[in-house]
Amino acid sequence: MGKESANRKVSAFAPASIGNVAVGFDILGLALPMLGDIVEVSISSAGVTIEEITGLEVPLPSNPEKNTAGKALIEMIKGEKLDFGFSIKIKKGIPLGSGMGGSAASAVAAVVAANEFLTRKLNKEELFNYAVQGEAVASGVAHGDNVAPALFGGITLCLKQNLDRWKVVELPYPKDIYCTILHPHIVVETKMARAILQKDIALSKHIEQSSHLASFLVGLYNGDWDLLQGSVRDVIIEPQRSSLIPHFDLFKKVAWDTGCLGFSISGAGPSVFALSQGQTTAKSLLEKWQALKQKLSYNFDLWSCEIDCCGARLMDVND
Amino acid sequence: MGKESANRKVSAFAPASIGNVAVGFDILGLALPMLGDIVEVSISSAGVTIEEITGLEVPLPSNPEKNTAGKALIEMIKGEKLDFGFSIKIKKGIPLGSGMGGSAASAVAAVVAANEFLTRKLNKEELFNYAVQGEAVASGVAHGDNVAPALFGGITLCLKQNLDRWKVVELPYPKDIYCTILHPHIVVETKMARAILQKDIALSKHIEQSSHLASFLVGLYNGDWDLLQGSVRDVIIEPQRSSLIPHFDLFKKVAWDTGCLGFSISGAGPSVFALSQGQTTAKSLLEKWQALKQKLSYNFDLWSCEIDCCGARLMDVND
Repeated sequence: MGKESANRKVSAFAPASIGNVAVGFDILGLALPMLGDIVEVSISSAGVTIEEITGLEVPLPSNPEKNTAGKALIEMIKGEKLDFGFSIKIKKGIPLGSGMGGSAASAVAAVVAANEFLTRKLNKEELFNYAVQGEAVASGVAHGDNVAPALFGGITLCLKQNLDRWKVVELPYPKDIYCTILHPHIVVETKMARAILQKDIALSKHIEQSSHLASFLVGLYNGDWDLLQGSVRDVIIEPQRSSLIPHFDLFKKVAWDTGCLGFSISGAGPSVFALSQGQTTAKSLLEKWQALKQKLSYNFDLWSCEIDCCGARLMDVND
Repeated sequence: MGKESANRKVSAFAPASIGNVAVGFDILGLALPMLGDIVEVSISSAGVTIEEITGLEVPLPSNPEKNTAGKALIEMIKGEKLDFGFSIKIKKGIPLGSGMGGSAASAVAAVVAANEFLTRKLNKEELFNYAVQGEAVASGVAHGDNVAPALFGGITLCLKQNLDRWKVVELPYPKDIYCTILHPHIVVETKMARAILQKDIALSKHIEQSSHLASFLVGLYNGDWDLLQGSVRDVIIEPQRSSLIPHFDLFKKVAWDTGCLGFSISGAGPSVFALSQGQTTAKSLLEKWQALKQKLSYNFDLWSCEIDCCGARLMDVND
């Protein structure tokens, strides 16, 4: 770090994401462009200080050890043996506890911005390792299913190959896959959503779910809509969590009736999503869900969008 | 069928295969070139007659309804509304109950040979549908994990999308994947091997196994040895069946120590297999297993080979 960096501020944006994507619990994720977190980073003498967190109704912990962005930078300082620290401002664009990867987005935006201050710039794999350690603060265990798409964009497969070795693969996908997302105004804590999961499942469900995972992956590689159609389906985790989400069965039925590729819970919920072939189907679903809002007197946000192509990016650099 | 077909005989060969391939229970398979079944087909006035079954120590049922090749042709006659029947001779090259897909190979060879007598030649997808109905006679339920590779060759994904609709995908694979196979001289009945499976499994095992499946599939598409290494691993079915196979743990340890991509049971067993990057590793494993033969005073057959590229083929056509 040169002296000219002392007053420099760097901001990075990281997009929202859908974890699990129905078929890949803890390993699959996809990035969404319509929301994201922004983290502004500047240099401090040592450690990490969270100056400000905005965009929230409920406060987030400003103790950097308990904040995903803070913890990611603490690990970066340690791992890179930095002789300086970071001061950060977090602007949350992703609602807390929405199941849209906000914890991961903050951690990712923080490491991407902080990277600009390093003498040896880290590559995405290295940044991933710090961000995923940050994200673990929120979910209790390190998972990369939201961190990977927030950093890389697109649809990602994220595997823990050994204790400390992660492998992220950017999957190909047909360009006209569209996503429709519904975010009910309730909060589901990831830790709680994990705690309710039963320890055993039926072997038959495992076999069925393996088929869906294989269909989805091979469908993406081959651009085969026949394989993708119906593959976005979770017969294991979703039935255990759907009761946390009001009107879940109705939203699901409408999605399938609209002809989507599939429907499920985004991450630990309460947001739900559907993937569609083409914008028309995705928008048609959006309109049908929109119509339910008044009918049910139930409040939620809706988006219809393509998949975010590029993941986290710097917003501006001013010295 | 013209009159000139009356004395015509057509033979087809279908290769052995490995079902499940560790990560895709009931859905994945790969073809092996070193063994196969041959079925010779000629025309009869009606129905299916099994004239002869050779190559076996134990007799197979010659009632065509109970024989996989016979049943496949019965379904073909029905489905194609043929006004004639078939007479067949089966030459078994794949040991019965070896877990190397003999039931599927006979059914596949039969439909491939019989197809030569049809006025409208069937494509592979259509042939698959008849062969899989034949194979169901052996395993009790229709599974395509051996039928698909025996017919198409290579590594195949075979999914049952609806009650009667199958989808077979030929997966890409790096050309230097090699296979080492060990066939102990004991018999494991597929139906029995299915019956011992517990109905429930741990959720954690499902998640782990999903990672292996995803690693394997994406590793094949990307030709990524880093993903393939270690992915050929079954933490769900294998532990429940391995006790049926003498010295299983030893064979497994030697395979892993040799640096294979992975090791598991071929289909329902008792054969076991390992996949390797390159012929050298595959042969090295073959030699180490060979050395165990004398040491254990235990008899088994061994092969090391590449994956069969092309699946079932006609052997000769003589009018």
